[in-house]
Amino acid sequence: MKNYKNSKKSGSEISFPSSLPNFVEIIERVRYSETDQMGVAHNASYFGWFEIGRTEYCRKKAIPYGEIEKKGYYFVVAEAFCKYRKPLRYDEEFIIRTALDELSPKKAIFSYQLLKKEDKSLIAEGYTVHVVTNSKGEVTSLPPELFEKFRKN
Amino acid sequence: MKNYKNSKKSGSEISFPSSLPNFVEIIERVRYSETDQMGVAHNASYFGWFEIGRTEYCRKKAIPYGEIEKKGYYFVVAEAFCKYRKPLRYDEEFIIRTALDELSPKKAIFSYQLLKKEDKSLIAEGYTVHVVTNSKGEVTSLPPELFEKFRKN
Amino acid sequence: MKNYKNSKKSGSEISFPSSLPNFVEIIERVRYSETDQMGVAHNASYFGWFEIGRTEYCRKKAIPYGEIEKKGYYFVVAEAFCKYRKPLRYDEEFIIRTALDELSPKKAIFSYQLLKKEDKSLIAEGYTVHVVTNSKGEVTSLPPELFEKFRKN
Amino acid sequence: MKNYKNSKKSGSEISFPSSLPNFVEIIERVRYSETDQMGVAHNASYFGWFEIGRTEYCRKKAIPYGEIEKKGYYFVVAEAFCKYRKPLRYDEEFIIRTALDELSPKKAIFSYQLLKKEDKSLIAEGYTVHVVTNSKGEVTSLPPELFEKFRKN
Repeated sequence: MKNYKNSKKSGSEISFPSSLPNFVEIIERVRYSETDQMGVAHNASYFGWFEIGRTEYCRKKAIPYGEIEKKGYYFVVAEAFCKYRKPLRYDEEFIIRTALDELSPKKAIFSYQLLKKEDKSLIAEGYTVHVVTNSKGEVTSLPPELFEKFRKN
Repeated sequence: MKNYKNSKKSGSEISFPSSLPNFVEIIERVRYSETDQMGVAHNASYFGWFEIGRTEYCRKKAIPYGEIEKKGYYFVVAEAFCKYRKPLRYDEEFIIRTALDELSPKKAIFSYQLLKKEDKSLIAEGYTVHVVTNSKGEVTSLPPELFEKFRKN
Repeated sequence: MKNYKNSKKSGSEISFPSSLPNFVEIIERVRYSETDQMGVAHNASYFGWFEIGRTEYCRKKAIPYGEIEKKGYYFVVAEAFCKYRKPLRYDEEFIIRTALDELSPKKAIFSYQLLKKEDKSLIAEGYTVHVVTNSKGEVTSLPPELFEKFRKN
Repeated sequence: MKNYKNSKKSGSEISFPSSLPNFVEIIERVRYSETDQMGVAHNASYFGWFEIGRTEYCRKKAIPYGEIEKKGYYFVVAEAFCKYRKPLRYDEEFIIRTALDELSPKKAIFSYQLLKKEDKSLIAEGYTVHVVTNSKGEVTSLPPELFEKFRKN
């Protein structure tokens, strides 16, 4: 399991720049249903929040993600990672900051930071890797008109 | 963002052994509420499933996790990673295989594989890193009697 | 708001028989992700559990629900109700008991009881009302071959 | 099961006034994770949205719900009902309208309407019944200073 341990190690070394280049922000609040019996937001909730950030990124910088799906293209999640730095509590407001880290017609990588609204301190950070598929789930390429919408930013 | 890209790259290179050593298995089914409009299980659902695997591992190999919390110790999630290899559909049965990859009194790393029940093919794999805290969320160490329960396996 | 208050009042008067006729049972465990900061299972989790019961009912008594959708018919939820009687805690095992209360080609009503596995005491009870639609969401009727599969029980 | 059927029948007759008296509104968007394979928001998501409405009601009209819990009082859900009238799709914006329907020191009933942001048409409506408990889950009464904060509206 050597490779595996290495991977985890480097996972711990992720260093985001203090601000992601060309990011999009949206503010959310922790829902009661997102807490668990530790009294903090549950670890799986963060991946739903990353998705909200991604949705907002597409809308603001390119094209609403729903329209991409209507054209028959899907950004299927191939990898997801989150590093949790500080707990988030019920009803706390936080910022979801999202950047498009890499884009090719077949693949996209988004990066995320969650920040306390109050003091902008880092709550969590992570990324998701996506492959482009058609409605049958087959890997495909974004058509030029969609690809350009993302690339021009 | 150099380190960050490296991390993602190595994230892609994770290679699990064909079977995790000393693992625990549990069978689950995809719930309707776990699907999304792509018609497959949503990416955040996998982290809930990892947690089911972890719960089962603690029960079978050491001590029910609920009893650990009752004694005042918590396995707070510090990192979570999942690599998605094949989609899972509503009502499909799958195996959650969980192993304890690393353990010290202050930290635990669990590894997971999700496998199709039918042909044992790999659906997804991942890991979670945990730090041990007390009920106030302060980092602490597992007491010897708890640590030994995990170590003896 | 007269009608409305009446409805709530009668909602409080729901009286399930001590055992639902012709029911199907399945055992589940409370997941960590299903708890909230009160330390008990979150109220919305119960509706996901009702759905598990419904899925099991269709499989055991008629036809897997997934096959109904593949034939182009959907049991869209029109109403959902739950009465919570006792809390459920992390890792607790419980029984989901499901019965088909009413069925016409256009409508189905399922009833549910959640019971403690240990002493069979009642945790919660409720119902869901469903209308049959096609894949465009238009109200339709179950074809006789599907309707008969449910009715023969 | 006579009472039970009556209850469901009257459940179908719920008639909200065209606008709830003294309501509080908040706008939300359907998250991708809240959709299911029917391509619409999953039925259990609505109960999480009701909770967001309730949170907003407490903040705007009385006292943040988190502070109520900090004082040792909990609004435990005893009943939850939702009537679904129109589907909601990914990324759609909608209004959660919440009113406090009944309040005594031991019990509260909240009513909800979800409306399309665009044309204010009714998507769903429902209610939740709550009993006041202490941190041990024992039924208790809200102290006068908390009760008054709600009553003055």
